[in-house]
Amino acid sequence: MVFDLQAYLDRCRRTINSELENLLPVSSPESKINAAMSYSILAGGKRVRPALCLAAAEAVGKSDSDIAAAACAIEMIHTYSLIHDDLPAMDDDDLRRGRPTCHVAFDEATAILAGDALLTLAFQTLAAAAADSGKEPGLWIEVINILATASGHQGMIKGQMQDIEAEKTPPALDQLEQMHALKTGAIIVASVKTGAILGGGSRDQIRMLGEYAGFIGLAFQVVDDILNVTGNPELMGKAIGTDLAKNKSTYPALMGLAGSQKFSGELISKSLRLLDNFDNRSEPLRVLATYIISRKR
Amino acid sequence: MVFDLQAYLDRCRRTINSELENLLPVSSPESKINAAMSYSILAGGKRVRPALCLAAAEAVGKSDSDIAAAACAIEMIHTYSLIHDDLPAMDDDDLRRGRPTCHVAFDEATAILAGDALLTLAFQTLAAAAADSGKEPGLWIEVINILATASGHQGMIKGQMQDIEAEKTPPALDQLEQMHALKTGAIIVASVKTGAILGGGSRDQIRMLGEYAGFIGLAFQVVDDILNVTGNPELMGKAIGTDLAKNKSTYPALMGLAGSQKFSGELISKSLRLLDNFDNRSEPLRVLATYIISRKR
Repeated sequence: MVFDLQAYLDRCRRTINSELENLLPVSSPESKINAAMSYSILAGGKRVRPALCLAAAEAVGKSDSDIAAAACAIEMIHTYSLIHDDLPAMDDDDLRRGRPTCHVAFDEATAILAGDALLTLAFQTLAAAAADSGKEPGLWIEVINILATASGHQGMIKGQMQDIEAEKTPPALDQLEQMHALKTGAIIVASVKTGAILGGGSRDQIRMLGEYAGFIGLAFQVVDDILNVTGNPELMGKAIGTDLAKNKSTYPALMGLAGSQKFSGELISKSLRLLDNFDNRSEPLRVLATYIISRKR
Repeated sequence: MVFDLQAYLDRCRRTINSELENLLPVSSPESKINAAMSYSILAGGKRVRPALCLAAAEAVGKSDSDIAAAACAIEMIHTYSLIHDDLPAMDDDDLRRGRPTCHVAFDEATAILAGDALLTLAFQTLAAAAADSGKEPGLWIEVINILATASGHQGMIKGQMQDIEAEKTPPALDQLEQMHALKTGAIIVASVKTGAILGGGSRDQIRMLGEYAGFIGLAFQVVDDILNVTGNPELMGKAIGTDLAKNKSTYPALMGLAGSQKFSGELISKSLRLLDNFDNRSEPLRVLATYIISRKR
């Protein structure tokens, strides 16, 4: 039987969206902050990171409902980073996921606070899930440490800072790779490790799945750069050609379009080889890896 | 023997500052984000919240070095909130602790990211301390939950949002009290509870110390409002009279200066009565409560 990725992703998305609706504060006209949090996180993201977390848990064992809570925490961290990256003082973007960005739909102060609140809610969600979970609390402590480290000044935030600096001095290929490993790769690796840890994986399994995630995380970014050249803006819900217009260092700019496509293919092959050490419960991770290079948005 | 508050506070401050220097990333000219984090948190704050955390741990038992790490996490959360509150889109303040605010000393993007990074580092610090600590991991999970809840959309951030809205519609006395309970009170209560939990306090002790903290948290804010009328700007490192100029709802504006002084005294008396249930190891908490109304900055 061929694994149906679309059905799998839809199922993950439904799980995550319904769990997110439980975890998010009730939105009301009196509470602009709650409304802004919901507006941004329920805007219909692809939920790739939570899906990777759930699939990693399945690959080593079983994905329980408390792992869905952890997957939601990851999506909260991802969404907070998008809200803050879009701010006028940062990338100054008006459109995200086909809708006005948070600071455009609300205002700048609300967007800053909504981002702060989602980041904080991520850790609250992890701690609450840990308290209700039958799992060893030490595993949750490890997950909190991994996610905080991946999203902090040694990870995602460091990468975002390098990205801002890169607009002044376009980076060379190795610097670009380091920047992406931090800005988008670290949280993808942490998402997969979170699933592997909470799913009860062995230390070896956690390490190998972390390496798998390192390869697909970089591939994800290379494909993002490719789509910014070749993509369909309607499908993507955002403008294309913006990297070229901003004279940004990208993979297509540094290694050409064909070179970038070849490179992303090689990364996916490497990630798949790591999955050879797992049984057929790793099928979702295998198909997610191939989805990452074939995606159109 | 009379308890020497100044010596106690100095000792707490030294403990916290030296621990913070270990926990913060090394500042370097290449890393603006690390430099901005250190700039803001090592700017010489009073360290009231960490001192309350350490004193609460002492009141129920003993303050170990892993509790100092938790106290530092609290100071990171406090400092992140100051950096973001000072931003142009929020209170637009140029001066903090007698020095240019983070976005003035660096730039807006760096200040947003430095705040994000300190908030994230707080949870990373708690998780790392938990992993190294001999204490039951479940206690740390409880602390992470309490601190995240107190600083998130149900606590500090909700209060900050109400404060922003209050500039349009000045709140009445009960709304003002609710706003302060959220904006500054929640994290003070959480600081004291963190110390009580990690210090090994009983459920009853944790609850009573939480109530103690509720009273001193509100008193702290009433005194802040009083100092904005009567304070010495040089001692305080910031301008005075700014609340009146902005036509803000404050305790002196709503209940007069004498009324505000009487009210803060009553709150402190209530807080002290709760400490009657503790032995003489609660002396630091007792003296901290009286410090809060006698402080000049």
